[in-house]
Amino acid sequence: MAGREFFATRSVADALREFTPARRTPTVPVALAGALHRVPAAPITSPAALPGFARATVDGYAVRAADTYGASEGLPSYLDVTGAVSMGRPATVEVKPGTAVAMPTGGVLPPGADAVVMVEYTQETMPGTVEVVRPVAPGDGMVRADEDVTVGAELVPAGRPLRPQDLGMLAAAGVTNVDVHAKPRVAIISTGDEVVPPGTGTLQPGQVRDATSAALAGLIQDAGGEPSPRGIVPDDAGALEAALRAALADSDLAVVSAGSSVGARDETATVVARLGDVYCHGLALRPGKPTLLAECAGVPLIGLPGNPLSALVVFRTVGVPLVRRVGGCTAPPPEPVVRARLGRPLASASGRLDIVQIRLRDGVAVPIFGFSALLSVLTTADGYLVVPPEATGLDEGTDVAVTLYQ
Amino acid sequence: MAGREFFATRSVADALREFTPARRTPTVPVALAGALHRVPAAPITSPAALPGFARATVDGYAVRAADTYGASEGLPSYLDVTGAVSMGRPATVEVKPGTAVAMPTGGVLPPGADAVVMVEYTQETMPGTVEVVRPVAPGDGMVRADEDVTVGAELVPAGRPLRPQDLGMLAAAGVTNVDVHAKPRVAIISTGDEVVPPGTGTLQPGQVRDATSAALAGLIQDAGGEPSPRGIVPDDAGALEAALRAALADSDLAVVSAGSSVGARDETATVVARLGDVYCHGLALRPGKPTLLAECAGVPLIGLPGNPLSALVVFRTVGVPLVRRVGGCTAPPPEPVVRARLGRPLASASGRLDIVQIRLRDGVAVPIFGFSALLSVLTTADGYLVVPPEATGLDEGTDVAVTLYQ
Repeated sequence: MAGREFFATRSVADALREFTPARRTPTVPVALAGALHRVPAAPITSPAALPGFARATVDGYAVRAADTYGASEGLPSYLDVTGAVSMGRPATVEVKPGTAVAMPTGGVLPPGADAVVMVEYTQETMPGTVEVVRPVAPGDGMVRADEDVTVGAELVPAGRPLRPQDLGMLAAAGVTNVDVHAKPRVAIISTGDEVVPPGTGTLQPGQVRDATSAALAGLIQDAGGEPSPRGIVPDDAGALEAALRAALADSDLAVVSAGSSVGARDETATVVARLGDVYCHGLALRPGKPTLLAECAGVPLIGLPGNPLSALVVFRTVGVPLVRRVGGCTAPPPEPVVRARLGRPLASASGRLDIVQIRLRDGVAVPIFGFSALLSVLTTADGYLVVPPEATGLDEGTDVAVTLYQ
Repeated sequence: MAGREFFATRSVADALREFTPARRTPTVPVALAGALHRVPAAPITSPAALPGFARATVDGYAVRAADTYGASEGLPSYLDVTGAVSMGRPATVEVKPGTAVAMPTGGVLPPGADAVVMVEYTQETMPGTVEVVRPVAPGDGMVRADEDVTVGAELVPAGRPLRPQDLGMLAAAGVTNVDVHAKPRVAIISTGDEVVPPGTGTLQPGQVRDATSAALAGLIQDAGGEPSPRGIVPDDAGALEAALRAALADSDLAVVSAGSSVGARDETATVVARLGDVYCHGLALRPGKPTLLAECAGVPLIGLPGNPLSALVVFRTVGVPLVRRVGGCTAPPPEPVVRARLGRPLASASGRLDIVQIRLRDGVAVPIFGFSALLSVLTTADGYLVVPPEATGLDEGTDVAVTLYQ
């Protein structure tokens, strides 16, 4: 038990605040078509004003607003139509006092015009003359040349994954390549004499297939990382150390799912302590107490509990924020959370953060109890509930926030 | 204006309920490593029970529970330790009355045993003998061979995108390939004489870069589709028809962002009407009224308004559900929604669904007003608010639900 005694147990809040490795992935250029949800390494500013020209926002007539003042159904303003603007072409005719130029939505406002009258409020009763039956103010029916974006304005901030509309904005500004953080490469090492690859057809008694690696790979992808599965290492200190050294050499983050027995867990801690600085061995978290956080040669390392459900809970809680951090993401996308009434009372030990798997039934959050080794608890859950360390329990009917799985 | 008169305007609710093309993408096999968020075409059931053997969930001793009844600190049960189970190996020793076998967490329960006593409640005072100081009930400290999953049980349902924990469950059951719906191939056609590719360095007066295609590609990816950009077609009925025919021939869905002028919009409707059945031309939606929904040779087609903001609002509202539907997704992932107090009163025309872009500031939902051609409204928004058709307006301070952009 020596390995466990050496290192402190920390609260989840402390771990999230204090375990903040400096590692960041380098910057790489990507084309816009591959940039969705990638993280800009620096703010991207606009090389030009948008739309770049004063533009009609309605179909109608470009005018001098003053020429329409007082216009009404009973007493229209009569303007000479001196031309028409075509889409995508410069305006060739100036709007002089007493004149109007026909405009399509999106067309370039001609020089001299300061507003566009909607076609609905006009009538071209005689060829070459338009009646305007409502006044417009300067700026009506149009946008200014820099109304969408001014030169040098920030199009997207650093650190926030690019959303679909951000890609649109970059395209509009002519930015077709963006410098983003490389996806953090996350090594996944499974350990345990009992663990065999998922592709193993027939199991020998006592063997289990590696479920954790596949699920971790999914969580890593969702967090913007690139999973790098390193296979299964037996419960052997030398083999584990060799696998860890290899993983640390070419990864931005390493995740080890330790064997589930006490001996296997302690062995992982002992090996990791040889390779770097252990921040904690033990989190005040259920499930997930036997969690190891360390930094080895500049690479953050997470040691997860051996059973898949606990491992995934821990990775969501402390691993996903680390992957985002290393990948330069400072503004993680929002997660879906719903309010619900708790369907049964929940006991909780004070001083420990409890993660309770939840099924939602007609607005009721029903806790799924079950031993934490059962993966089916996670696959039948709609989401989870966090019971904070200061709570000593929650009454049935309490209004709770359930984070939904996506 | 003929094209507009021919076709009905529909409510968004009607469109979502009634415009339900039958097209579904075919089924393709994918490896687990590439299956995240893919949509299983049929439920996947377990070929075997999991964990597959009765398994210890604690470190301790496998026993016959009856042998521990009445045990206490003052009066322990004494059991003969007849062996030890190794991880990943079958149990070789039977637990007979009066005996115990040492067990690691995760080890195979030996025949004869019906419970595992936690090591914390035992003491091996003499070699070969263990004192048990607390009784256990049958089933304590272990899981049954089929406690996680029974043979034939559903591991994942059809139609719900695979989550990380689902991949773990499939791996545990030895399912390393899954039959999923092919990603719907969504053709994106931009139209407009004024529209030029995003890579265009210097614009001529009146030209704008194609912002909509890049943003649509992002929305399509998020909906599980595969964007297929088809470039920009000038405002010419023949060119549009040719582009549409080519797109319909090898796509599962087609999206056309129409030119923004009335003429260009009507032309799209006229061309589409020649190629298939128009469900509606006009949605009771703001922004986004000039929306076209049609089915052409079995391929659903969406005609979007010409300006990027309106186009993206429409695509989120009716396009994303269509992409999911064609891709076999019947249980879309939850979206993040937060409650907030409305920061200003909102006027709204009855009978029309209004989508209002929102910035969130300290729990207050601040509507972003601005002409719907401004893409910056979307990039500065944190999310949006749906004002239903039956509402005639919302008072300042109303508790509203804001869907957050991810």
